[in-house]
Amino acid sequence: MATVGFIGLGNMGGPMASNLISAGHTVKVFDLVPELIQSVPGALAGTSALDAATDIDVFVSMLPAGHHVRGLYLGDGSEPGLLAHMSTDTLVIDCSTIDPASAQAVAAQAVEQGLAMLDAPVSGGTAGAQGGTLTFIVGGEEQALQQARPILEAMGSNIFHAGAAGAGQIAKICNNMLLAILMAGTAETLALGVDNGLDPGVLSEIMKVSSAGNWALNVYNPFPGVMPSAPASSGYKGGFLVDLMRKDLGLALQTAQATQSAIPLGSLAQNLYQLLSENHDAGGLDFSSIQYLYKPGLKNT
Amino acid sequence: MATVGFIGLGNMGGPMASNLISAGHTVKVFDLVPELIQSVPGALAGTSALDAATDIDVFVSMLPAGHHVRGLYLGDGSEPGLLAHMSTDTLVIDCSTIDPASAQAVAAQAVEQGLAMLDAPVSGGTAGAQGGTLTFIVGGEEQALQQARPILEAMGSNIFHAGAAGAGQIAKICNNMLLAILMAGTAETLALGVDNGLDPGVLSEIMKVSSAGNWALNVYNPFPGVMPSAPASSGYKGGFLVDLMRKDLGLALQTAQATQSAIPLGSLAQNLYQLLSENHDAGGLDFSSIQYLYKPGLKNT
Amino acid sequence: MATVGFIGLGNMGGPMASNLISAGHTVKVFDLVPELIQSVPGALAGTSALDAATDIDVFVSMLPAGHHVRGLYLGDGSEPGLLAHMSTDTLVIDCSTIDPASAQAVAAQAVEQGLAMLDAPVSGGTAGAQGGTLTFIVGGEEQALQQARPILEAMGSNIFHAGAAGAGQIAKICNNMLLAILMAGTAETLALGVDNGLDPGVLSEIMKVSSAGNWALNVYNPFPGVMPSAPASSGYKGGFLVDLMRKDLGLALQTAQATQSAIPLGSLAQNLYQLLSENHDAGGLDFSSIQYLYKPGLKNT
Amino acid sequence: MATVGFIGLGNMGGPMASNLISAGHTVKVFDLVPELIQSVPGALAGTSALDAATDIDVFVSMLPAGHHVRGLYLGDGSEPGLLAHMSTDTLVIDCSTIDPASAQAVAAQAVEQGLAMLDAPVSGGTAGAQGGTLTFIVGGEEQALQQARPILEAMGSNIFHAGAAGAGQIAKICNNMLLAILMAGTAETLALGVDNGLDPGVLSEIMKVSSAGNWALNVYNPFPGVMPSAPASSGYKGGFLVDLMRKDLGLALQTAQATQSAIPLGSLAQNLYQLLSENHDAGGLDFSSIQYLYKPGLKNT
Repeated sequence: MATVGFIGLGNMGGPMASNLISAGHTVKVFDLVPELIQSVPGALAGTSALDAATDIDVFVSMLPAGHHVRGLYLGDGSEPGLLAHMSTDTLVIDCSTIDPASAQAVAAQAVEQGLAMLDAPVSGGTAGAQGGTLTFIVGGEEQALQQARPILEAMGSNIFHAGAAGAGQIAKICNNMLLAILMAGTAETLALGVDNGLDPGVLSEIMKVSSAGNWALNVYNPFPGVMPSAPASSGYKGGFLVDLMRKDLGLALQTAQATQSAIPLGSLAQNLYQLLSENHDAGGLDFSSIQYLYKPGLKNT
Repeated sequence: MATVGFIGLGNMGGPMASNLISAGHTVKVFDLVPELIQSVPGALAGTSALDAATDIDVFVSMLPAGHHVRGLYLGDGSEPGLLAHMSTDTLVIDCSTIDPASAQAVAAQAVEQGLAMLDAPVSGGTAGAQGGTLTFIVGGEEQALQQARPILEAMGSNIFHAGAAGAGQIAKICNNMLLAILMAGTAETLALGVDNGLDPGVLSEIMKVSSAGNWALNVYNPFPGVMPSAPASSGYKGGFLVDLMRKDLGLALQTAQATQSAIPLGSLAQNLYQLLSENHDAGGLDFSSIQYLYKPGLKNT
Repeated sequence: MATVGFIGLGNMGGPMASNLISAGHTVKVFDLVPELIQSVPGALAGTSALDAATDIDVFVSMLPAGHHVRGLYLGDGSEPGLLAHMSTDTLVIDCSTIDPASAQAVAAQAVEQGLAMLDAPVSGGTAGAQGGTLTFIVGGEEQALQQARPILEAMGSNIFHAGAAGAGQIAKICNNMLLAILMAGTAETLALGVDNGLDPGVLSEIMKVSSAGNWALNVYNPFPGVMPSAPASSGYKGGFLVDLMRKDLGLALQTAQATQSAIPLGSLAQNLYQLLSENHDAGGLDFSSIQYLYKPGLKNT
Repeated sequence: MATVGFIGLGNMGGPMASNLISAGHTVKVFDLVPELIQSVPGALAGTSALDAATDIDVFVSMLPAGHHVRGLYLGDGSEPGLLAHMSTDTLVIDCSTIDPASAQAVAAQAVEQGLAMLDAPVSGGTAGAQGGTLTFIVGGEEQALQQARPILEAMGSNIFHAGAAGAGQIAKICNNMLLAILMAGTAETLALGVDNGLDPGVLSEIMKVSSAGNWALNVYNPFPGVMPSAPASSGYKGGFLVDLMRKDLGLALQTAQATQSAIPLGSLAQNLYQLLSENHDAGGLDFSSIQYLYKPGLKNT
């Protein structure tokens, strides 16, 4: 069992830290919001980020955006960040979903300080965090990943090695961009069928087992009533929020800009989500509510 | 066993007629190209479309476009079409992929003449036609479909009932529009990953089992070398041609126009296929060659 | 002065016929709506389309869509159309905005009957029709256009010769597709500026005299309040309706399909207009109301 | 006459500094490339950026990107930038085209140090820089702009006040995003017309004086041969390069992200330029070469 420092105790980080404790690890936590520090039963309360990063084997962070991760590890210009203070036998795992450039900048600095570092963004949402069934998509050295496995396995059920530093972020961003295309494309196609007189359930059944089969259609159908367990059938409540998809699509645009890659469909999907949000105030709804943009009349049903 | 009239003996229709014969049906064939009439072993050679439509139980047509189907069944204005001459106990099955409006116009006229008619476009390509493993997506009366099952089962392995007359066309068009979005979206996402240093095979493996999983990624990967059996790994030869996908996307646009439905992603996919065709002369390549538009350098490998 | 037959006396055709009379021509009119036949002071009331096409020098039609024009001139299959009955010294001018294929089919048949025919779609709206200031974009033989000039000049102030038969339709469709791109692009850019703190009027002034200057920005600003005389400043009332722009964009898609031309921006503009119409019930508003899609909050001001 | 410090002596900055000297100002220059420091006849050679910023009335910078501007003025974290050293009666003018967030961050710091600062990006290209006919789009206080006018007028012929700090950048980004839409839209429309048999020159003449008139069509026609003086008629050489347009479109995406604004047409135009660049290696061609994407056959003429 390891001693783990853990920073970032929000909706995702809190349950993740709890699962580490349940698995028998010693966990020292810290968050800028004092209440959150007390919110993880069985955890040691760190007095600062630096305290949580001291006298530990593994350090885990779960933060909202790239500038938080840069600030934590690299400092803000006026004073150095955590990396400068950490013991070189510490394994650092950043589970935040951020831009690959930030992930790579932090990892490069870690290497310079003699530290092993992984970027390990997750999918699976708050349910996955609570159930310990998250998927980790990991970038970094194979050896560091081997070392990290017991830690990650306490929090998730799938671990993928995407490649070198930053590759975890890139792979997650790619996955979620394609997911946005699938979801919007599925919603658009179902609307086209319904407009032309088809039953959305019948059309879905046909396409699921044909060449249009895809995750959004098969397990997360966006048309209300087709799949009782899907958010679409409960007023698009819960699930994966439009605002989070917009964040990930923003990262996709940024990533494509870095390599001057053309992503016409990803860009259009991103803009459709912006239009959805603006025209239907849907930021807090599940991302399958893109169906509203194509069938606004569904809002009144 | 039934006596079947069969019109349209091209790459699809020829093998379909053969499979009817293999199943024990008597088949009377006709095509405007005389050589094709002789190309189906065991078939009776009709002397005209009308001859092939006379003294039969079931009539099957497999033609390129809506105006051919209208011309055959409704005539060309100067003289009436086949429907006017057919015995009212004949079951008519049009397997062509055409615009729903034409399918509905012909079916309406059939009903007026007292004939049962189904639109039953297929997917599965020439391999499916030869192997008798086509998928039929059927529009029309349930009772007519029950009557048609033995005939369709001789040519295919999946039969879906999409709804009333024309619904088969609409459902197939929806499926193929979404397929185009999946394929172009997958190619775009793989290119983004590769541009950012990921291995296309590793990225594919991750996304396949994550929320970006879809038919194009999972069974028809467009990136060369990822899936040895896919057209992408054999120079995009064979498979489902870009020109056929363009035809189906044209039908999707026409269908969306009829109901004034917004299909921004479908329209963009259609335009990406036009750009692919114009910029890479790719009309005769498999439709997964959309990868070229995102990674033109692959053409030289 | 000529004797003119005139078919189609709606919002556009009625005032056009009146202007011909004001210019001194003798005009025999017909419409399927009997009341309209009486609505043109000074006109001779035709008893049928054929009557209006008999004993005249010039025949003018102003109809809603391609199938009306085909039906009038070519007949409906069961009986021949007007062309078969017209005297060969009649000059035929169709002012309808229709698909180029229909215009070319009708013109080809006219030639076969020995008749000179022009397609001459108009722009300028009902105000232009009433004021006699329409723009005519003409396809057909130069000689026929010379003959038509006195007639067209009685109804409009600009006459362009776009090319051979059908070219008038194609040029008008091209113009209006680009106009839709200009309008949506201008609305999008103004919204981006405003979202980032700019004053829409100041931004407009800068762009008007810079490289972003365009007709939509310069004379028809879509942002409320920037240009007092524009429809945007009067609740998007009147002007050129969203539904008419959608019709023209539909013709653009059809025209691009005929030549398999890529029109990604035109297609996206078309879909944005569909989304506008569906999400804001804007079919009856001026087409500059595309601004609502980008700034839905403007609806409440 | 003023004493001016000038940093950044590339293709734009060099001629701009020369024009200041021609107008009678004393100019102290600096660049990280030593050769460039000697390249401005009549200038005083600064020994460092700080030297060029000392004992002057006005300081002008012309740098490639936001991080250069941040680095120069704010420092790099380890040591403070120029603003910390400048005399508070210095007027600072940054003529770089950069992201508004960087412009605003630098301006905010300038204000804190008691300095007046303007963002004043230019348009007009190297020809405008050499001829002293640049357009300046300025963000900042009206009073600072009044003070800056004699300096700006020595380098340009048009000066617009867009608003507060950063507004110059935003307005320029808006203008150039709309310009990209106009250019791609015009190229697309001309290709559609030509594909359908129209002469590009005739179609251009019609649209120029109709509602599709726009800067790209009217003064910079992208179709070869239509406008002899346009880059299109000289192999798309010179002019405003595709790579520069891509940079500006990248800034537009970044700006839209900051406010979560939907820019579907701007995003599509950006992706069309990426596709152009990748498929036709066109980064070094004039931006009207987007015509190649629609008519690749033109490359061989």
